[in-house]
Amino acid sequence: MSSRTEQTFAPPVMEARRWVLDAVFSEDRPLLNVSQAAPVEPPPEPLRQAMAEMVMNDTSSHLYGPVLGLPDLRTEIAETWTRDYGGIVRPDQVAITAGCNQAFTAAISALCNEGDEVLLPVPFYFNHAMWLQMEGLGLVPLPCRAGLLPDPEEAASLITERTKAIVLVTPNNPGGVEYPAELVRAFFELARSRGLTLVLDETYRDFDSRPTPPHDLFTDPDWPDTLVQLYSFSKAFRLTGHRTGAMVARPELLSEVEKFLDTVSICAPQVGQKAALWGMRNLGQWLASERDEVLDRRMAMEAALTTLSGWRLLGCGAYFAYVEHPYDMPSDQAAKWLVETAGVLMLPGTMFRPDNDPAGAREMRIAFANVDRAGIAELAQRLSATRPT
Amino acid sequence: MSSRTEQTFAPPVMEARRWVLDAVFSEDRPLLNVSQAAPVEPPPEPLRQAMAEMVMNDTSSHLYGPVLGLPDLRTEIAETWTRDYGGIVRPDQVAITAGCNQAFTAAISALCNEGDEVLLPVPFYFNHAMWLQMEGLGLVPLPCRAGLLPDPEEAASLITERTKAIVLVTPNNPGGVEYPAELVRAFFELARSRGLTLVLDETYRDFDSRPTPPHDLFTDPDWPDTLVQLYSFSKAFRLTGHRTGAMVARPELLSEVEKFLDTVSICAPQVGQKAALWGMRNLGQWLASERDEVLDRRMAMEAALTTLSGWRLLGCGAYFAYVEHPYDMPSDQAAKWLVETAGVLMLPGTMFRPDNDPAGAREMRIAFANVDRAGIAELAQRLSATRPT
Repeated sequence: MSSRTEQTFAPPVMEARRWVLDAVFSEDRPLLNVSQAAPVEPPPEPLRQAMAEMVMNDTSSHLYGPVLGLPDLRTEIAETWTRDYGGIVRPDQVAITAGCNQAFTAAISALCNEGDEVLLPVPFYFNHAMWLQMEGLGLVPLPCRAGLLPDPEEAASLITERTKAIVLVTPNNPGGVEYPAELVRAFFELARSRGLTLVLDETYRDFDSRPTPPHDLFTDPDWPDTLVQLYSFSKAFRLTGHRTGAMVARPELLSEVEKFLDTVSICAPQVGQKAALWGMRNLGQWLASERDEVLDRRMAMEAALTTLSGWRLLGCGAYFAYVEHPYDMPSDQAAKWLVETAGVLMLPGTMFRPDNDPAGAREMRIAFANVDRAGIAELAQRLSATRPT
Repeated sequence: MSSRTEQTFAPPVMEARRWVLDAVFSEDRPLLNVSQAAPVEPPPEPLRQAMAEMVMNDTSSHLYGPVLGLPDLRTEIAETWTRDYGGIVRPDQVAITAGCNQAFTAAISALCNEGDEVLLPVPFYFNHAMWLQMEGLGLVPLPCRAGLLPDPEEAASLITERTKAIVLVTPNNPGGVEYPAELVRAFFELARSRGLTLVLDETYRDFDSRPTPPHDLFTDPDWPDTLVQLYSFSKAFRLTGHRTGAMVARPELLSEVEKFLDTVSICAPQVGQKAALWGMRNLGQWLASERDEVLDRRMAMEAALTTLSGWRLLGCGAYFAYVEHPYDMPSDQAAKWLVETAGVLMLPGTMFRPDNDPAGAREMRIAFANVDRAGIAELAQRLSATRPT
């Protein structure tokens, strides 16, 4: 290996984009794209108007800001988290990043050094695996078991003296699964007892189906010693193109994170930060109805999958259904073939598992959040009509 | 060292911000800030109007885009560079990044692995040093000699079997110096002959005083084998807060860079990219007058420094004068003291040199680009009136 980047694989999403570019779709059967873990509509009009005002009349929208983010946005997150999680989060425990991917990379670089190890549940979010590999870290796969959930006891058996962190994503990408609060707590206690950090990625928290907080970690007065939480504004307010995420962590760690962010980005984009703040202050009701719609689509997706012979649902939630496919070929071949044959793009399980893991060949991720009930019916129809020759 | 970030120092600019926060300024003598290597005014109104239109009516402004950037912007850069440098640059040799800092970090991670070495002229741009340290690389200081220029023969003597790249910044930050085209060519030939990459940061190219291209490297048909060029839109169109930069390099290296950018940012912010494209197509005349103004301020700055007893100009150009100060204290103390005593913020040379380099204590960087002729006269007056007690 002659460079850091050569230690990892090419971005899977770019590969999937190429399949679509190579295919031809008829007008009466356009591409049905269930590959994207992101909104495809613009932010609601009042937010767009607020953003237009920012770029026209607010000079600070165009200038560098503090490395760790706009103070007002850090405060808004702290207050909202304190209310939502029933614990205490202070503004100096919040940092703003240029998206949640960047929050993950900054956290890992602030926690780990060459040769350290990180436990990562499998199937994983591929960019997490890529960063661990690029950073020269040991990616220790933690296999998900029943219900696509990882097991804290199995995790405990994988910890070595080089282990620095355990990563959890809930609701999960790619699995969709909402981790039970007790399971998240069990991983937190494991991390604490072994002097590790629990990195908890809650990018999809706004689409969690539960009426209660997804975990109780922030109610623990000592959470800063063990927990690093990550968040994204991309999904809630449809701000993917503006790159705005957040990290909640102890200030001593954020001082380390500040070095990384300063060097890699100087600051998160200002328009995205101001838009996120505007959204938090003005779009609570709108977001609640967005969540209702995603939860309705989830029900439709689950129902549709039960009618599909040979398909098996492994996990479902947030934007995703994670499934076993019925085709007699590896998932990466099947995914490409579904683009050509059914006009459907979904991502193969091979993208979410290590190369040598045979389970990836049987799995697919269906990101249903951008497809309405009619589209989900159409998806089910196309899949049921598509059998290998 | 227990993490990557712990291998480097805290962001110097945040330290300088704290000095200002701690100080009190009177109304008749407000802070004169010559610390910032960036515009402090918003983009011109027509560009702001174009940006407002983008966020109101162009959905793609809000969505993810390709990892390596908008195709139209890559093409515009390729065509502009082909014209400006008199060589050939193709769109597939251009990547867009979330600022030029990110271009540097991506290039280094695509070129180097743990324990490799990089030659970095000293004084350096501190974020370059920080990334090399965080990445576990050997930062090999290449001392600048007469006229703040590095010497290719001295560089040759510092190359080992672990060396992967030589970094040059021209016009230089912090030194201001415009490297002669022949010197840039000599470093290119050195890199080529030793199988290294020359990483050439031209963030300040739009404010180069020379009427001719700053170097002839792109006229060499084999430039892609040796050259990686970095650029920023932050200065030209006043887009610092939008985070838009670029890298020009061989497509094989950009495939490696794509892994880094996908993982750290997913994509550069879309509004910044679209604004940069609009600026390139519509603000050529405006940028030419901006450059005239900066060059005029440079003349005023050089003239002012000759009148100041005890100060010595080491280098000048782009946004910067790099100077020796007359005070009988180290530059970091003197800089803090100048904030309190003279209401002037400039950055100390200690920020631009390794800890053990005594020259840093005698040097200061004055970023004059945001201060007009009257302000430069005021700066000279305040400095001449400020003698240590």
